[in-house]
Formats: sequence, C-alpha cells, structure tokens
Amino acid sequence: MPKPKSIKESITIMTEMVMPNDTNTLGNLMGGNLMRMMDIAGAITAQKHCNRIVVTASVDNVSFVNPIPLGNVVTLEGKITRAFTTSMEVVVNVFSENIPAGTKTKTNQAFLTFVAVDQTGRPIEVPEAIIETEEEKELYDSAQRRRELRLVLAGRL
Amino acid sequence: MPKPKSIKESITIMTEMVMPNDTNTLGNLMGGNLMRMMDIAGAITAQKHCNRIVVTASVDNVSFVNPIPLGNVVTLEGKITRAFTTSMEVVVNVFSENIPAGTKTKTNQAFLTFVAVDQTGRPIEVPEAIIETEEEKELYDSAQRRRELRLVLAGRL
Amino acid sequence: MPKPKSIKESITIMTEMVMPNDTNTLGNLMGGNLMRMMDIAGAITAQKHCNRIVVTASVDNVSFVNPIPLGNVVTLEGKITRAFTTSMEVVVNVFSENIPAGTKTKTNQAFLTFVAVDQTGRPIEVPEAIIETEEEKELYDSAQRRRELRLVLAGRL
Amino acid sequence: MPKPKSIKESITIMTEMVMPNDTNTLGNLMGGNLMRMMDIAGAITAQKHCNRIVVTASVDNVSFVNPIPLGNVVTLEGKITRAFTTSMEVVVNVFSENIPAGTKTKTNQAFLTFVAVDQTGRPIEVPEAIIETEEEKELYDSAQRRRELRLVLAGRL
Amino acid sequence: MPKPKSIKESITIMTEMVMPNDTNTLGNLMGGNLMRMMDIAGAITAQKHCNRIVVTASVDNVSFVNPIPLGNVVTLEGKITRAFTTSMEVVVNVFSENIPAGTKTKTNQAFLTFVAVDQTGRPIEVPEAIIETEEEKELYDSAQRRRELRLVLAGRL
Amino acid sequence: MPKPKSIKESITIMTEMVMPNDTNTLGNLMGGNLMRMMDIAGAITAQKHCNRIVVTASVDNVSFVNPIPLGNVVTLEGKITRAFTTSMEVVVNVFSENIPAGTKTKTNQAFLTFVAVDQTGRPIEVPEAIIETEEEKELYDSAQRRRELRLVLAGRL
Ligand SMILES: CC(C)(COP(=O)(O)OP(=O)(O)OC[C@H]1O[C@@H](n2cnc3c(N)ncnc32)[C@H](O)[C@@H]1OP(=O)(O)O)[C@@H](O)C(=O)NCCC(=O)NCCS
Ligand SMILES: CC(C)(COP(=O)(O)OP(=O)(O)OC[C@H]1O[C@@H](n2cnc3c(N)ncnc32)[C@H](O)[C@@H]1OP(=O)(O)O)[C@@H](O)C(=O)NCCC(=O)NCCS
Ligand SMILES: CC(C)(COP(=O)(O)OP(=O)(O)OC[C@H]1O[C@@H](n2cnc3c(N)ncnc32)[C@H](O)[C@@H]1OP(=O)(O)O)[C@@H](O)C(=O)NCCC(=O)NCCS
Ligand SMILES: CC(C)(COP(=O)(O)OP(=O)(O)OC[C@H]1O[C@@H](n2cnc3c(N)ncnc32)[C@H](O)[C@@H]1OP(=O)(O)O)[C@@H](O)C(=O)NCCC(=O)NCCS
Repeated sequence: MPKPKSIKESITIMTEMVMPNDTNTLGNLMGGNLMRMMDIAGAITAQKHCNRIVVTASVDNVSFVNPIPLGNVVTLEGKITRAFTTSMEVVVNVFSENIPAGTKTKTNQAFLTFVAVDQTGRPIEVPEAIIETEEEKELYDSAQRRRELRLVLAGRL
Repeated sequence: MPKPKSIKESITIMTEMVMPNDTNTLGNLMGGNLMRMMDIAGAITAQKHCNRIVVTASVDNVSFVNPIPLGNVVTLEGKITRAFTTSMEVVVNVFSENIPAGTKTKTNQAFLTFVAVDQTGRPIEVPEAIIETEEEKELYDSAQRRRELRLVLAGRL
Repeated sequence: MPKPKSIKESITIMTEMVMPNDTNTLGNLMGGNLMRMMDIAGAITAQKHCNRIVVTASVDNVSFVNPIPLGNVVTLEGKITRAFTTSMEVVVNVFSENIPAGTKTKTNQAFLTFVAVDQTGRPIEVPEAIIETEEEKELYDSAQRRRELRLVLAGRL
Repeated sequence: MPKPKSIKESITIMTEMVMPNDTNTLGNLMGGNLMRMMDIAGAITAQKHCNRIVVTASVDNVSFVNPIPLGNVVTLEGKITRAFTTSMEVVVNVFSENIPAGTKTKTNQAFLTFVAVDQTGRPIEVPEAIIETEEEKELYDSAQRRRELRLVLAGRL
Repeated sequence: MPKPKSIKESITIMTEMVMPNDTNTLGNLMGGNLMRMMDIAGAITAQKHCNRIVVTASVDNVSFVNPIPLGNVVTLEGKITRAFTTSMEVVVNVFSENIPAGTKTKTNQAFLTFVAVDQTGRPIEVPEAIIETEEEKELYDSAQRRRELRLVLAGRL
Repeated sequence: MPKPKSIKESITIMTEMVMPNDTNTLGNLMGGNLMRMMDIAGAITAQKHCNRIVVTASVDNVSFVNPIPLGNVVTLEGKITRAFTTSMEVVVNVFSENIPAGTKTKTNQAFLTFVAVDQTGRPIEVPEAIIETEEEKELYDSAQRRRELRLVLAGRL
C-alpha cells in the first residue's frame, strides 16, 4: 500500500482569465466552461496526491450563484479532502475577481471524485490522506456522508 | 404569464466527435469536457422552452461510468422535465458510439437547472410544461423531489 | 458485400451555438466555420451508414444566403442520399434559429461525398442505401447527376 | 465607382501547421478544417482588393485528392480572379509540405465568391480587377462561366 | 499618485496541463504556447498590482532548456519585481511536473514588462512596490539594469 | 555535413486574422498570442532551412509598440539569418493591416533561435546559409553579436 501523504501536498491553484469564447450572450462565463476548469483543477489535485493517472468518477451538485463577467480572473483552489481505496474526494473552491474594481468573491464550491488508474484504465490503490488542521478534519469527516449520498444518487448503494 | 408549451418542443439533439484536445493521457474524453457539452445542450433545450436567454443555476450530481475514447461520437439529448416559476429542470442523456465497432452505450444522465433572465440578468417567468407521455409524467413528478434536494444542498431551503 | 441499410439509420442531428470566436467583424458566423460543421456532421452521417472510417472526397457548391448572428443556434441535419461502390453522398441541411425571437430559417443545403477507407486509407466497399420514402427516392435519383457533375469538375470523368 | 486595382495587390499567403486537433482518427487533416482555412485566406484576399468588409457568398465544388498528415505545413495562396459589381471571385491554391521529407504537393484548388458589404451587411460596389499576365487573363475569362454555373446551382439564374 | 503596495499581493499561480493541441510532432509543448501562458500569468500579476487594465510592453529574452512533454503539469508563478511610472516589471517562473514520475523541474524564468492603461489605451500611473524580503530586494535592484538593457534593445535609449 | 542552402528558400509568410478570443478587454491582440504566432512562423522557417524537426531554443527580447485591434490582419514574414552548428537564428517581421482603412504598419521584429533535432530530441547539424543580398549580409554579420548576448543571458557563455 502506498505511503500516506499530507493533504497540503495536493494543493493546486489555477488562475484563468475569462476569454470572449467562454461567455454567453450576456457576456458572462458559461457554467459548462467553469465545470471544465473545475475538472482540470481537480484532476491535477488528485494526481498530486496519488502520483497516478486519474479519471473523473463523479461531480457532486454544483450551484452557480454569481455571474462571472468577461475579463474577470477566476481562481480555482483544489485540495484533497479524503482518500478511500482507489478513489479520492477533492474540493475545488472558486473565486472570481474583478481586478480593476478590486473585488474578489467566492462564487462556487464543488466536490469531485477521482479514481487512480493504471495504463489500462484499471483502478489502483491510493495513499491515505494525513489530516493536519481542524478544517481538514471537518472536510475529512463529512467526506464519508457525501460519499454515501453520491453512491446513492449514482444508484450504486 | 407565458402560454404553456409541450415538452417535446424543447427536445435538442447535439452530436459531437471526440477530438484529440478533448482527451486525457489515456486517450479518453475528459469529464469536464463532457460537462461543458451537457451545459450547452441543456441551455439550448431550456432556451427553446422559454424563448429567453437562460443561465445555468445548478448541475446535479453527475457520474462517469464509461470511458469515451478518441474518435467516438457523443450524442446528447436534452429535454425539459418541468418548469417552475423562473427556473426549468432539463434532463440530458448522453450516448457514446463507436461507429466502426457498431456499439452505442448510454453513458450518462444529468439534470441541470436553468433560469430564464432578461437582458440585465434578472429572473423572469417561464411557460409551464405540458406533459403528454407516461415517461414525461414520471420525470415531471420526480422533478419536485430533485428540486428540494438541490435547494437544500445549495443552502436555499 | 456489406448488407444494405436503410437511409434513416444514418440520420445525424448536430446542434451548435454560434460562439464569439466563430464570428467576423459584423458579428456573424464565418462561412468557413459553417463548412467545418457541415463536414463533421456529414462525416458522422456517412460513418453511421458504413460503420467505417470515412474521408471527405468532395464538397459540392455551397451558397450562403443568410447571415447567422452570434448567439443563434445552428442545427445541421445529415442523411445519406445514395451509396455507390466505396463512396456515399450525404446531404446536410442547415437551419439557423434565433430562439429569443422565435424564428428558424433553413439557411443552407450542401452535398458532400465521403469515401469509406481502411486503416491504411484505401477505399473499401460500402452497403447499399435502401430507399423508403418519396423524398429519399428523389434525392437518390438526382444523386447520379450530381455525381457526374462533380467527377467532371474534378477532372475524373 | 472605386478605382481599378491590379490583381497582384490582392495576393495573400497563409501558412499553417497541421495541429493534433485538426486531424481525424487516421491522423490526417479533416476536410472541413481545410475549408475553414480556405475561407479565411479567401476573405483576406477579397478584403485586400476592395478595402471593405466581405462576406462569403459561395464556395464552388472542392475535391480532396490527397490526405494531409499531422505535422505537415499547409500553404494557401489566394488571389482575386475577377471582380463583378459587388462580388469578387477568389482562387485559393493549397499546397501541402512534408518538410523533413522535402516534398511539396499541390493538393487543392478552390474558387470562392465574396461580396463587399457595408456596416449593415448591404452589398457595395468593388473596384475592377486589372489583368497583367497571361495566367490572370485565363482565370479572368473563365470566371464568367464559373459565375454562371454557380448562380444556376444557387437557383439565381 | 496611487498608494504603494507590497509585492506579495501580486503573486499569481497558474497551473496548466499540456494538452495535445499544444504540442509539436515530438509530443512536447511548443515554445510559443508557453510564451502565451507566461503572458497571461504576467498580465494578471501586473493587474493585481495596479488594479488597472494592462498591456504587454515587452518580453525579455526567454531560453528553453527543457522539453515539456504532453500530460505534464506546468505551473507558472508570477510576481512583480518593481514598478516604475506607468510600467511594471514582472518575473514569471515556470515549473514542469511529471506527476506520475514524481519529478518537478524549474524550466524557465522570464521578465515581462506591462504598462497600465485607461479605457482609451493611454498609460496611467501605477503604485510603487514595497519590498519586504531579501529576494525581493535583489530583484528590485537588478530591475533597473534589465530596464536599461531592454530600452537599449528596443532602440529607445 | 548537409549542403548549404540559400536564405530565400526559408522565407515563410503567415497571414492571420485577429479573432475575438485572441484579444484582451480593450479588443486588442494579446502579446502572448502574437508570440505564439511568431514561434510557429519561425519554426516553419527553420524547418524549411534544415528539413528537420526543430525546437525553440530561445526568443530574444520582443517589444510591443502598436496595439493590433480585432479584425486586423497580421502578416508574419520569417527568414533565416544565419545557421550555426545545430542552431539557426530566424528573424520574424510582423505587420498589422487594417484593410478597410488601407493602413499597414510594421509592428514588431523578433529574433528566435531554433535547434534541429532528431526523433529523440538530440541536436543535429544544419546546412550553412548562403548570403545573396546586402540585407542578408547585414543580418548575417549581426547574428554573431546577438548570439553572444543571448548565450550570456542564458548563462551559457
Ligand atoms: C440563477 C440566478 C439568476 C438566480 O437568481 P436569484 O437572485 O437567486 O433569484 P431567485 O431567488 O428569484 O431564484 C430564481 C430561480 O432560481 C432558482 N435557483 C436559485 N438557485 C438555485 C440552485 N442552486 N439550484 C437550482 N435552482 C436555483 C430558484 O429556485 C428560483 O426558481 P423558481 O423561480 O423557479 O422558483 C442567479 O443566481 C445567477 O445569476 N447565477 C449565476 C448564473 C451563471 O452565470 N451561471 C454560470 C456561472 S459560471
Ligand atoms: C451575399 C449577400 C450579401 C448577397 O445579398 P443579396 O441581397 O443577394 O444581394 P444581391 O442580389 O445584390 O447580390 C449581390 C452579389 O452577390 C452575388 N451572389 C449572390 N448569391 C450568390 C451566390 N450564391 N454565389 C455567388 N454570388 C452570389 C450576386 O451575383 C451579386 O454579385 P454582383 O453584384 O457582383 O453582380 C447575402 O446573400 C448574404 O448576406 N449572405 C450571407 C453571407 C454570410 O454571412 N456568409 C456566411 C454564412 S455562415
Ligand atoms: C478519397 C480517396 C480515398 C479516393 O481514393 P482514389 O485512389 O481516388 O480511389 P478510387 O479511384 O478507387 O475512388 C474511390 C471513390 O472515390 C470517389 N471519388 C474520388 N474522387 C472524388 C471526387 N473528387 N468527388 C467525389 N467522389 C470522388 C470515386 O468516384 C470512387 O467512388 P466509388 O467507389 O463509389 O465509385 C483519396 O482521393 C483520398 O484519400 N483523398 C483525400 C481525403 C482527405 O484526406 N480529405 C481531407 C483533405 S484536407
Ligand atoms: C535546445 C536544446 C535541444 C539544446 O540542447 P543542449 O543539450 O543544450 O545542446 P547543445 O549544448 O549541444 O546546444 C545545441 C545548440 O543550441 C544552442 N542553444 C542552447 N541554448 C540556447 C539558448 N538559450 N539560446 C540560443 N541558443 C541556444 C547552442 O548554442 C547550440 O548551438 P550550435 O550547435 O549552433 O552552436 C535543448 O536545450 C532543448 O531541448 N530545449 C527545449 C526545447 C523546447 O522544447 N522548447 C519549447 C519549450 S516549451
């Protein structure tokens, strides 16, 4: 079994500018483009934890409360919350920044599950995640509940 | 209040080929790219129902069970399940087809919520959805439960 | 020789939103981007008929009568008209829809020829196309004349 | 009426490398991507002649005789053949080059028609084209026949 | 004059995966694509310092010592080194990570100059940069020499 | 050793239209996108000289003096200035053209160094460059100085 790793080793920060082709007719980022960024940020986070190729197994419910206009800077911060056997839960927090206006808002939080696979695409064991802070502990504990909900929703429980 | 519309008027079919840049190092479609396609297919579906600009309010839990290799054809079929006041639930079914092999699999099902907005981005009323088939009725009925779950998850209920 | 297939099995519907990067300085879809979509829709159509990799052998004269503005939804409907020995003629009809305005126009019709090839790119036989409707028969019959014109224009007849 | 201009002032050379995302599963450039490049090269050519915004009015039959593999360099050479009242015919010659192998082939020739338009998209007069070489004269003379064929095919003659 | 800001407020981290379309025929990231990423990372860094729209004024000599293969993760870390009147020098450090192999290398360092502009594109004053560490002081001091060299190379001194 | 080649055999002309996604919030081409185009134009130029795969070894200081607005046509002209042992210096001149306004400006000049490599990425000898004009001689002679400066800046001299 691979050697446990601390959660902070997986932290991934991705910064993107909203480009014209990412926007809808109101000039705001389309939801699907943000989900694409979340998936890439999450996959890199999970890869860093397990040092393996990973595939997306599921994305939990995502809400979009704030429009993100053209020219804004989007920052995605990914970190692992908990590793199971071959799967890992990653949380991605999204911030939107209008730099000339000097405003920065947390716009989304998403939980994604990635599975480590070998070259043939078969699941393979991942290291345990070592908790070091209070916040990490909370996310670790609640991960179990989210896991159950998503397995139910996927019809696998 | 806008005049009710039948569900079948909203049906949207989108066909895409998996291109090299959509794939990961295993040569399979990345989850985030599929979610981007789902969002576009869903937005067109919702627009057809309400004849308005729409924005993505939420995407329910999505599971990824089958890898979709480079060169496969992905078909997304969107249709409205139920209209609320300003929001509409859309279901998007995804099929992956390896045409030379003659195989076609249903790979995903996603429920997305879109809100109709005016030019300033403010929610605006949408037509009711008229049910015509048994399957439409089932999706219509279960939409209420899914709505409650997602509003709870979003901290709005 | 492969078993004949009905024309309707090849029907392919592709829906696209006109994105900012697809447009010219007047804010309308560029002709070349529409041709790129036609080629993909046509190739999938032809692949569905023959269950083979296909390559584009020719595109007949295409006229552009209507500008298609940013934000419009473009629907491409492809179906096979006739199969020859290794080549197939596909017709692609293009519709442009301004959903908020509730208008939908047929903007283009194109005939493309695809050739089925093996892994080395060599032509390979395709199934015959079974005609089932009056409209299919008309397209089937006229396909012979179009084939002659295009082979003459290509200097092959 | 705008002052006549020599044909050579319109000459446009476009060089592109075939990138992974431009290719099909055989690793060759897809026909629709080549047509997109032809349209851009042709539009710049026509713009140079009339110093106006132009729109694509039609593309004549295009044949694809040679596959163009990934990594090849594609050169497109556009020049005007003849200007009518508001429309111009452009010829685009396409060459494909495998530089490490030292081979360069002419792969395609296409005739496209562009119409000069004002800011509202209405056709506007273009300068006549001054012929200076024997080859230009031939293309100029044959342009009339091609124009008739394409207006017949478009149902305009 | 705008209020001075500490250098650390400008720090920008951008993480990117090398996608198929970014690579050459050896399967490595093309230099121009890395420069495009550096420019975006640098522009966000400079924007954060001055809370203005910025434009790229120059990019100093960049060397490429290490190929960066498909699938690697590229991390770009930008921070301001010194602010002049309307221009700011930004340093971007680039790291390439092969996550499955567990290797991370610093591959490039680039100095870019951005100018703050108003909505009409005219230069506008920027805040001074407050130095807080020894390393920041070194970069601040050497910025003057680099500025002189680049103005000489640009033929403006 | 490969046979010397004249400089003019390497001349490469690339024409691009500035598309919406290439621009910043002021509607002008982003510097990094121009650098990406320069790198492609330069790589094709160097490939033509040595008939080998090439990689970018360095890009000299680039200045951006003129904004290049959306819809402008950018022309890049690359030619080799001098070949060393395995490396070649290429000069790329960039012109920006507002065709409706009838204006064309030289906006940039860049010197890039490419190294010819074999399939494993190892440097390999290139042909000498034969000078034929006065301008070629000047660029050839000054190439030595630029080489020294860039190798010093890269810490290799
Ligand atoms: C969607 C949005 C317009 C709702 O605005 P609001 O001020 O919350 O408006 P309301 O409270 O009146 O809610 C409007 C509707 O949205 C629904 N809604 C809001 N949040 C939701 C969520 N997370 N999931 C599902 N539905 C939601 C409400 O239930 C309500 O539906 P109803 O009218 O049918 O009952 C707003 O949140 C928004 O602009 N979000 C960003 C959209 C976007 O840009 N998406 C892409 C981001 S990258
Ligand atoms: C091209 C367009 C401006 C012509 O407008 P129109 O109202 O038909 O104008 P006219 O009848 O005055 O014709 C104008 C010119 O176009 C030419 N034209 C029209 N249709 C044509 C066709 N199918 N093929 C070639 N030329 C054509 C006419 O012959 C005429 O040329 P001339 O003035 O040199 O004799 C109009 O059809 C249009 O806007 N089309 C869409 C362009 C576009 O957006 N292309 C991309 C679509 S994805
Ligand atoms: C299409 C292709 C496979 C034909 O190969 P070929 O050696 O000419 O083969 P054949 O002479 O046996 O012709 C095969 C079929 O193609 C058809 N064909 C060839 N050229 C054609 C043209 N210009 N228009 C329409 N059909 C054509 C022939 O009529 C024949 O059809 P049939 O078997 O149904 O009677 C070959 O030309 C090719 O690979 N072209 C490039 C395809 C491509 O890469 N397209 C994208 C380029 S960017
Ligand atoms: C360019 C590269 C092949 C040189 O390899 P190397 O092991 O340093 O080889 P050498 O020391 O033999 O140098 C080879 C040539 O490169 C030149 N070179 C090396 N670094 C250079 C630099 N920073 N600027 C200019 N020339 C340089 C050398 O002068 C030598 O030229 P010469 O043979 O004409 O005298 C290697 O550094 C490399 O692969 N770099 C990455 C290229 C790349 O992938 N670019 C895109 C990155 S995103």
